[in-house]
Order: sequence, then C-alpha cells, then structure tokens
Amino acid sequence: MKLVTFDDGRVGRIEGSRVVELDVPDMRTYYERGLLADETGETFALADVRLRAPIIPKKFFHTAGNFREHDEESKNVNWSHPVLPWIVFFQNIDAIIGTDDAIVYPPDGLTNEMDYELELAVVIGKAGKFFSPEEAEDYIAGYIIFNDITARDIQREEMKSGVFCLSKSIDTFCPIGPWIVTPDEVGDPHNLSMELRVNGESRQVSHTSRMSVTIPEIISHYSPMGYSPGDIVSTGTVSGVAGFSDDPMSLYLKPGDEVECEIENVGILRNRVVAWADVHAPA
Amino acid sequence: MKLVTFDDGRVGRIEGSRVVELDVPDMRTYYERGLLADETGETFALADVRLRAPIIPKKFFHTAGNFREHDEESKNVNWSHPVLPWIVFFQNIDAIIGTDDAIVYPPDGLTNEMDYELELAVVIGKAGKFFSPEEAEDYIAGYIIFNDITARDIQREEMKSGVFCLSKSIDTFCPIGPWIVTPDEVGDPHNLSMELRVNGESRQVSHTSRMSVTIPEIISHYSPMGYSPGDIVSTGTVSGVAGFSDDPMSLYLKPGDEVECEIENVGILRNRVVAWADVHAPA
Repeated sequence: MKLVTFDDGRVGRIEGSRVVELDVPDMRTYYERGLLADETGETFALADVRLRAPIIPKKFFHTAGNFREHDEESKNVNWSHPVLPWIVFFQNIDAIIGTDDAIVYPPDGLTNEMDYELELAVVIGKAGKFFSPEEAEDYIAGYIIFNDITARDIQREEMKSGVFCLSKSIDTFCPIGPWIVTPDEVGDPHNLSMELRVNGESRQVSHTSRMSVTIPEIISHYSPMGYSPGDIVSTGTVSGVAGFSDDPMSLYLKPGDEVECEIENVGILRNRVVAWADVHAPA
Repeated sequence: MKLVTFDDGRVGRIEGSRVVELDVPDMRTYYERGLLADETGETFALADVRLRAPIIPKKFFHTAGNFREHDEESKNVNWSHPVLPWIVFFQNIDAIIGTDDAIVYPPDGLTNEMDYELELAVVIGKAGKFFSPEEAEDYIAGYIIFNDITARDIQREEMKSGVFCLSKSIDTFCPIGPWIVTPDEVGDPHNLSMELRVNGESRQVSHTSRMSVTIPEIISHYSPMGYSPGDIVSTGTVSGVAGFSDDPMSLYLKPGDEVECEIENVGILRNRVVAWADVHAPA
C-alpha cells in the first residue's frame, strides 16, 4: 500500500490510478491510532491531486555512516572526521517539504556548496524504547525516500566543534516522499537499487544491499531515545555526492536544477532548486 | 508572569500562591494562538498541583559553546574537539521531563558517566525565519531552566564521527522547568546568577553575563532553520560539569542523587536520579 498526503493536507491510499481518502486529520494521527482509518467515501484521480510531504513526524532520526562507500569517498577531501557507523542527529522537521516542492537556495551567500544525498528512510509505526534488533521489525511500518540536502561549506565549519546540524537543516532542506510504502510492497529493504539524478544525469547509483548494518539494528540502536508513532529514521547515503567528488564546484546544486531520487519499489522523489528571490520576492 | 503545565496537562499562570487555569489544551497551543488564552474560571493552590514539563515544543534547538569557560575546562580532558561557539543540534523532545520527574539511569551499562549541565533556555513566541539579531528580541517570549543530562562515555564515542546526540537524548535526559517566566519578570537575561547543586553541594556556579554572544545573536544565527511558536533554544552550559573535573568518576550522577538547577529570576528545577529497575521493575 502507498499512503499519501495531498492537496490541503488530506490523507489517502493509492488504489491503481486513484486516491482513496482516509478519515484522519493528518498522517501522524493515522500512526497514532494504530494504523487504522476508515475511508471517507471520497476518491480522487491521482493525476489530479497535488502530493504533499507524506508526514510531519514528531521526530526525524537522521542517521549516517551506514554505507561504508560514503566514508571511502569522503577520503577524497580533507575532512576532519571519518563517516563512522552509528552517526545520529535529529533533523529539523520544519524543513520538511514534499515531492515537487521547491528546495530554496538560501539568501546572502549563506552557502555556496549545496549538495544532495539520496537515502532510504523508515517510518516507525508505534511507540517504544529500549528494544532489540529482533524486536525492531515490529516497529517498521513503511519506507520513504529522503534527499538529505547539505550545505558542505557550513558542514565543514560545524564539524570543527563536532556537530553537523545547521548545514543539513536549513529551511526546505528536507525533501521526503513521494509517499509512504508499506513493508509488504517494498519487499526486502536490503535489496533495492538506488539512483539520484540531477537534470537527468546519474550522480549516485548504489544498492541498499551495501548497507554495513541492517535496518533493524539501526532502529534498535537508537531506541534508548524512544520512538513515537510516525517517527522517521533515515539510513544514510551512498557514494556519489558532489562534495566528495573530484570537481565539487561543478556538481553542487544551483537554482534551476532538478533532483530526482529513485529507490526501487518505493518511487521517485523529485524537487527543483529555486532561487531565494523567486520565492521570497517582495510583492 | 509564570506559566505552568500541571496535573493531567492543564495550563495556567501563577498568581501569588495560586494557579489560575487558562483555556488552552496545552502550552504549545498557547503560543500558536499568539499568547492569548481566556481563564477557565478555575484556580488551584500552587502547593496542591503537580507541576509538569511546562511545554513540549515542536523543536528544541540545543546550542553550546556560548560560555567560553566551559571550553576552557574541557581542556582538562583529552577531548577530540574544542567547544566552539555556534554549536547547535536538535534535542529529543520525547526525552523531556518536568520538575520533580525522575531522571532514569539507563539499563545494561549503556552509560557509566551520567553528567549534568545547567542552562538557561529561551521560549520562542512566534514563527519566523531568516531574521537579524535586532529583530530577534520580538521572538523571545519566555525563559526556562534546562538540565542537559549527558552520558560522557557515549559522547566521547559519538564525537569521533563529529556528532553528539544519543549521549544527550536518552529517555528522560531532558529536564526543563519548573515553569516559563516571561521576559518582563526575568529582566536582563545577561545578568542572572546560575547555580547547579547535587545533593545540596554546589557544582556549577556562574552568571549569564559570562556568555560570549548575546541571546538575540543566538536566536538570529539559527533562524535559517525556522522557528515555530513555542520552540525552545538553549544557550549553553557553564563550567563545573563532572566530566571535565579532576575527579569525574566521583562526581558523575548516580541513582539517588538530587540535582537542583537554579537561575536567578527564573526558579529552581529539581530532579532525582532513579535506578532503571525502580521505574521499570516487572509488576
């Protein structure tokens, strides 16, 4: 099943080419109610609705380091830290946007190095804390695509103090979508091809089988912080980011660029980078 | 004015020795409605109510490095990073507890180095992003005390990858309270004495005048991430933490310890450390 948030915040599931509306005020409530919702009786053509960010979770666990290839490529540049497994921090939930929403290029030279990072993320179905990898499977309620937009110049500065947050949490830097796919429809989450394209050109091409830890291990590892229904846990990016390439400046995102994030059995998350002035121009 | 959340989540303001109940479902809604709420007509003796965490914000901006004395003392130990200004990360809002709630010592040796950090925090009154320090004053709606409970052993591990999150975000590691005090009652936030005591013994004694940046500068600096009404921004701790002392192991928190965090004109936040088994014992 594919679950969507659409138009002015309605919730539904996709059935063929139609969206069947569900009777919940928002997607987080769907999970808080134990993944139960009646149908409202209304349906819409999928082609006619505007998809929104599928969910605004209470918490977004942003993990990293779970693909060793991303650590390997990081050695191309003189960064202060290795990308070890078990990196986690919280993502800014106010920065979340959906598919087809604009990634806004920040004003005033705040960054000149806007990068992309393709990631598979998990939607947590129920509350829990302090549980084992064996128990973790029960908490996985869906999968979603996440593009971890990153200002590499800010990240380099932040890492001098041993954090990275602002660099990845600026307004609109958190595209997720296009929908939530339930586990039965995704199949083995460690057997999915992944590709990120900029203006149609392949930049990141990998496979979830290259993860060095398993998704249940990730979910369990962070469970001492506690999960709420609908929380998101990202699983880390793969090789091919602009910042660790041989020619970063030619590959960083610029206004006008279109980024497509594709993961097998999940879908395509598509966003365009838009200049600040085009979004915030005085009337 | 002092604003409280009490009993089963009621909201009120303190008037002398009584709590005047306000007609909002929770404190965050009070800020979302523009700091407006009618009275319900009910009042309670302050001595008879159970204070709760004053607010569960949408986001908790956890900043650090704003007191240089904490960086200075960090040089006592061989940490991988300096505590530079402008450190920020998001705190786990599911770890929030109120005054008199238990800080639960985690199970299974997850940490053996539970530390305290006294901080003044700001409650943001309205939504906004990308604004200057001059404009920041308008966003400050109140002050609150925050005890940044930290597992130093986990933090040392995390910092190898350039983050710290799990170490400060474990379940119950985020005591805030005892109430929110409005700016008019706090006076100059850069002129407040600060003291943290463990079992009545002074551990951190400092003054907000020692902050190296101003609170409006902090609020403005992180505004590219956007604020929602009721968001919290902490301002960093002062010297005197256990982990950077000459004898950390004798000073780390243990089950049974009582921690009091006091900030002039704000109040006292008091919590006891409780053994995991005493909270989660099988019935």
